[in-house]
Amino acid sequence: MSARLKLGMVGGGEGAFIGGVHRIAARIDGQWDLVAGALSSDAARAHASAAALGIAPDRSYDSFEQMAAAEAARDDGIDAVAIVTPNHMHVPAALAFLKAGIHVICDKPLASKLEDALQLEQVLAQSGKLFVLTHNYSGYPLIRQARDMVARGELGQLRLVHVEYVQDWLTEAATGKQAEWRTDPARSGAGGAIGDIGTHAWQLAEFVTGQSPEALAADLSSFVEGRAVDDNAHVMLRYASGAKGMLWASQVAVGNENALRLRIHGDKGGLDWAQENPNQMAFTRFGQPTQILTRAGAGATDAGLATTRIPAGHPEGYLEGFATLYLEAADAIRAHDADNTTGGSVLPGLSDGLSGMRFIDACLRSSQAGGVWTPVIQQG
Amino acid sequence: MSARLKLGMVGGGEGAFIGGVHRIAARIDGQWDLVAGALSSDAARAHASAAALGIAPDRSYDSFEQMAAAEAARDDGIDAVAIVTPNHMHVPAALAFLKAGIHVICDKPLASKLEDALQLEQVLAQSGKLFVLTHNYSGYPLIRQARDMVARGELGQLRLVHVEYVQDWLTEAATGKQAEWRTDPARSGAGGAIGDIGTHAWQLAEFVTGQSPEALAADLSSFVEGRAVDDNAHVMLRYASGAKGMLWASQVAVGNENALRLRIHGDKGGLDWAQENPNQMAFTRFGQPTQILTRAGAGATDAGLATTRIPAGHPEGYLEGFATLYLEAADAIRAHDADNTTGGSVLPGLSDGLSGMRFIDACLRSSQAGGVWTPVIQQG
Amino acid sequence: MSARLKLGMVGGGEGAFIGGVHRIAARIDGQWDLVAGALSSDAARAHASAAALGIAPDRSYDSFEQMAAAEAARDDGIDAVAIVTPNHMHVPAALAFLKAGIHVICDKPLASKLEDALQLEQVLAQSGKLFVLTHNYSGYPLIRQARDMVARGELGQLRLVHVEYVQDWLTEAATGKQAEWRTDPARSGAGGAIGDIGTHAWQLAEFVTGQSPEALAADLSSFVEGRAVDDNAHVMLRYASGAKGMLWASQVAVGNENALRLRIHGDKGGLDWAQENPNQMAFTRFGQPTQILTRAGAGATDAGLATTRIPAGHPEGYLEGFATLYLEAADAIRAHDADNTTGGSVLPGLSDGLSGMRFIDACLRSSQAGGVWTPVIQQG
Amino acid sequence: MSARLKLGMVGGGEGAFIGGVHRIAARIDGQWDLVAGALSSDAARAHASAAALGIAPDRSYDSFEQMAAAEAARDDGIDAVAIVTPNHMHVPAALAFLKAGIHVICDKPLASKLEDALQLEQVLAQSGKLFVLTHNYSGYPLIRQARDMVARGELGQLRLVHVEYVQDWLTEAATGKQAEWRTDPARSGAGGAIGDIGTHAWQLAEFVTGQSPEALAADLSSFVEGRAVDDNAHVMLRYASGAKGMLWASQVAVGNENALRLRIHGDKGGLDWAQENPNQMAFTRFGQPTQILTRAGAGATDAGLATTRIPAGHPEGYLEGFATLYLEAADAIRAHDADNTTGGSVLPGLSDGLSGMRFIDACLRSSQAGGVWTPVIQQG
Repeated sequence: MSARLKLGMVGGGEGAFIGGVHRIAARIDGQWDLVAGALSSDAARAHASAAALGIAPDRSYDSFEQMAAAEAARDDGIDAVAIVTPNHMHVPAALAFLKAGIHVICDKPLASKLEDALQLEQVLAQSGKLFVLTHNYSGYPLIRQARDMVARGELGQLRLVHVEYVQDWLTEAATGKQAEWRTDPARSGAGGAIGDIGTHAWQLAEFVTGQSPEALAADLSSFVEGRAVDDNAHVMLRYASGAKGMLWASQVAVGNENALRLRIHGDKGGLDWAQENPNQMAFTRFGQPTQILTRAGAGATDAGLATTRIPAGHPEGYLEGFATLYLEAADAIRAHDADNTTGGSVLPGLSDGLSGMRFIDACLRSSQAGGVWTPVIQQG
Repeated sequence: MSARLKLGMVGGGEGAFIGGVHRIAARIDGQWDLVAGALSSDAARAHASAAALGIAPDRSYDSFEQMAAAEAARDDGIDAVAIVTPNHMHVPAALAFLKAGIHVICDKPLASKLEDALQLEQVLAQSGKLFVLTHNYSGYPLIRQARDMVARGELGQLRLVHVEYVQDWLTEAATGKQAEWRTDPARSGAGGAIGDIGTHAWQLAEFVTGQSPEALAADLSSFVEGRAVDDNAHVMLRYASGAKGMLWASQVAVGNENALRLRIHGDKGGLDWAQENPNQMAFTRFGQPTQILTRAGAGATDAGLATTRIPAGHPEGYLEGFATLYLEAADAIRAHDADNTTGGSVLPGLSDGLSGMRFIDACLRSSQAGGVWTPVIQQG
Repeated sequence: MSARLKLGMVGGGEGAFIGGVHRIAARIDGQWDLVAGALSSDAARAHASAAALGIAPDRSYDSFEQMAAAEAARDDGIDAVAIVTPNHMHVPAALAFLKAGIHVICDKPLASKLEDALQLEQVLAQSGKLFVLTHNYSGYPLIRQARDMVARGELGQLRLVHVEYVQDWLTEAATGKQAEWRTDPARSGAGGAIGDIGTHAWQLAEFVTGQSPEALAADLSSFVEGRAVDDNAHVMLRYASGAKGMLWASQVAVGNENALRLRIHGDKGGLDWAQENPNQMAFTRFGQPTQILTRAGAGATDAGLATTRIPAGHPEGYLEGFATLYLEAADAIRAHDADNTTGGSVLPGLSDGLSGMRFIDACLRSSQAGGVWTPVIQQG
Repeated sequence: MSARLKLGMVGGGEGAFIGGVHRIAARIDGQWDLVAGALSSDAARAHASAAALGIAPDRSYDSFEQMAAAEAARDDGIDAVAIVTPNHMHVPAALAFLKAGIHVICDKPLASKLEDALQLEQVLAQSGKLFVLTHNYSGYPLIRQARDMVARGELGQLRLVHVEYVQDWLTEAATGKQAEWRTDPARSGAGGAIGDIGTHAWQLAEFVTGQSPEALAADLSSFVEGRAVDDNAHVMLRYASGAKGMLWASQVAVGNENALRLRIHGDKGGLDWAQENPNQMAFTRFGQPTQILTRAGAGATDAGLATTRIPAGHPEGYLEGFATLYLEAADAIRAHDADNTTGGSVLPGLSDGLSGMRFIDACLRSSQAGGVWTPVIQQG
């Protein structure tokens, strides 16, 4: 085993949800030590949080700018930074660390505005560093297997992609720190549900199918009075290949906790996977009985087995899928630092992030125009 | 018990699927005797089928026109006719029997063309007879309960309606009698999946919510080369109330047999029901654990209990739901014949049929125009 | 189609549950007309019930003895009688009709006492008539398929049989007509849950495996104060083949409606089927992914297809499974009356009934002796 | 946050399954650093494994005896040792560390022989140290909630306990390191399935109900030729309270991966939980619809919430449940080292281990005597 890599964190102070998730994910496979942080824009909270996490006082910073500069200057500076702030801070923080020559692991969505996101492209290219976007659902073993099965043609020519990500926690007017910033356009971006969870659904479908829709028609709604962003999105999708799709993202679908589901149908087979019970996936070859594929069970493929830790029937969950991204990031950074290559990884990165921003942008444009079909500009 | 009613049948000769279903449905509750038929446009097959069904030779007719005239002239003529032909014959047959003063029970969709369907309105009104359209899924006890719960406000103000009806039997180029006429526009109408199963989904959502969308955007596809009608339909829905919806109908979704599922979400609660296991339905009050409501079980309402035959845990199925329409038709006919009233029933009828035709029409218009939002004209 | 057969009924007057089920089952496939009855020991109720069912007054009898004699004497007398009384009346009624030369269709369990049941053997043999015991769960298409798969060796050498039949309706002290007689030893027999539902579980396991346990150890309980019969039974099973099993029957398992489940494991494969969603069954070949077999779907076998009416995905239920016994009884009676043969049928009959009685008897003996292993005497 | 505790490990070298699980579990909540090990009885493998895990060479030991002595002598010696060897080494290793004054975290079952296990009692008492037995399934949040609900009387007076733990990986003659020692009586003990997984089932039922059976009747089988230990166990249970139960443990139930399921029924309610989808549990109050309780969802209790890390709908799994034991062990050790108390914890420990050994012993005695009812001696 190589020595552990050193991780810094921006955001993720007390009371934050996703910062804690990143920390667990970084610990699970024993590849990272959290040694530095700018954990809050409130300095007192930042330092208290750092102390609670065992970060040395001299590596608890008042700002990410300070942290980027100081860590870049240390011999034992961090190998990578995890950015887990509200969305509008992702790009500024990422720019600072990339410019300082530090690899970046960033929470999704990439930015609160597409323009901000586009700034990253050139800086990243110049930096020669790695940029990982934590679309964690792509880390589930059966999602890796699904991607693999699609690529190998087990479903035949793809025809249909159905993805839904539905919750109910914003059914009523939001309260609490999480709800507050996630429904504030200034911090989360103009997309509400489409940004917070729609981008996950979009990325998951892209990741598994290897295709990205060329056009969409979106009908966004904000069902709760006074809410400034969408809390429900109905989207129809068209692919250049002729495939068609539907995407539903909702935070007001009562009875749903975190119901992300992906169904893909080709002319030879179909797949059905749901995140809340992620250790099984239905697979049907046309004309044959549906099979229940299980993580690490009979029928598991190399792609699935490579990202799992324990035998079939011992459920892995959300944290393990997330951890796989941290494990792969560690591998990628070691490879990169050894020979300057970044190839071969399936880790979600900047292109996923830009695609997600273009999805948000296209949804907003479509919906504002009354739900018309709108191209999703993939390059340019 | 009143004496059994006398039933005639048009269509449903050997090799037909839905005719046999109607016959079982008519038998289950012991309210009907099948005594007459014009079972096939092929006279030899018509008479052979009649003999096999125990229909007296003198009441096996060569054509529905002949049958309508002859039965109307008999003292012991049929009380009602069941029309189970391919779609394009529904209206001509219905017209003949209504004009002859005979109640009509007709399979769905109402017609192969909206213009044909509209002819029925005036004739039906003049006839003073009953017209039942066998949208059988509305006969499931838990669907009755769902309708009732929505009406009583248990879900609050409705926000979201998601209905999908997906199959895979037309994944490849069609063969067999069923596939043949159901993909022939001349016989089934210009709608393929939207007509055959989309109308069921549409009606089910209407039946349960008590609302009908005012506009839709439809993206129809025909994935199998050479197929003249759609085999997949993606549709977004908007209601006058502000509710939104999605409808997916497919006959090429590999791994699905007859997967009709309805989900409804309001600001206070949500429902989730799936036809393939119709004896349970998930219901969630916002902020409380999801409940599993079962047919005739704890939590069953009068509307559900009134349409069920056996205790909870003893599954009723498709045929019982269908039979409920025949039972209610018998009740309605007896009431009508007693006092000329037709009120009070929730039986699907002409208005459901016309709504379905307008759904097909709006889908075709929307899709042909590129998937644009299109009004569903409900009246006129 | 042959002419319908004529059915009489003993028991099943107003307020009875199982009589109504038999009547629907007899109607579903259009093979029977109910023309005579001794529907209640209370003559007024018997005649009122008969009138409501459309039975002619002269064929509504005051007693089954009267009915057996009168129907045997008619030229148009009944072809078979359905006996749907409380358990203690099954044998006396069956004896009367067999002696009168009338085929018998009898509800389960066969009798309230083993001694009574044994009387039937000789009389039945002498009568040359058919005796069908309505172990209706054996009529489910996937149960037929399971039996067939076991017989063909798809599971290999059987090792394990697990069957459970659990309900909760007797969780508290019984009230109502159903609860009353089913917990009264004088009418239902000394077995409570083991008689009422345990015999179904026992028969289902026998029917599918083709094997009957040679010994059992039973621990019967009566959890509700004052209850005279068992309401819960734990039973371990041993087969002569070396297979082992467990059987659980309960009427006090809160949260269960009618949860009959059968699991069978051999050295090559395993099956898992549950009655409350009877249209699917899990099947696993060792080392391969579990398959979901569906009624009439991909992977259906002839045995399953022969007993189903509608396509996959259109759920059949309890009533259709029950109806299959009536359909097969009609076929068997026609064959028997044509050429005096009774062969080939898988219909449950006297041997199933005697096996069930021996199961009850062995459970009672075992439990009374403290739960010791006890032979189940299969012959003698 | 307090400083991390220092962990040593005995066993768990390359190729071991459970050692890796313990290491992940120890990392998840960031409370432990693995700093020492005697990872294999093969010294070369021990040191190679230690190096791969980042253990300093001077703290990689040739034997656990050496390790116990050396670590006890260091100022920065380990706080606790994790023992993850085959079963027969658990007690010798535990004795060595307890005598050296080091807390012990031990894999289950406690020992290969009851006599060995009993030796631990006195030594543990004298040591004043903590002994944690990693019955990890008791760490699942919904299991904590279930225990709490039972204790609060939400199920009423308990009547029925049904627990099953079934797998299929030993369906054929065993191969591989895991299969080899787990079916070798010298290393795993005289119990096969009952020791390896039956003890988990036994402990889970004890943990949730707060009761332990006073007697059992066991029918053990070894279905695979040449296998020296049981691979299937059928057990009936009796509790002093009058409750009854069934326990099924199998490693030859084809189609099952790691199917541990617990059902408990009282006179007021019932619970049903299955390990393979551990984030939900069915709960029924008698006469009301079944509720689906979810981890951290609506209806979650303090006991469940205290042991969970992420919101409802984000599945936690096996590793998180296991990690909870390590987190609680860290808390308990800190509390103990602060004030010498050990109270308040629900962590499984020696009493669970001894109960498990008595369960194995009683099963073996019962089965050898033909499956007779046998007391489970709880004290003495």
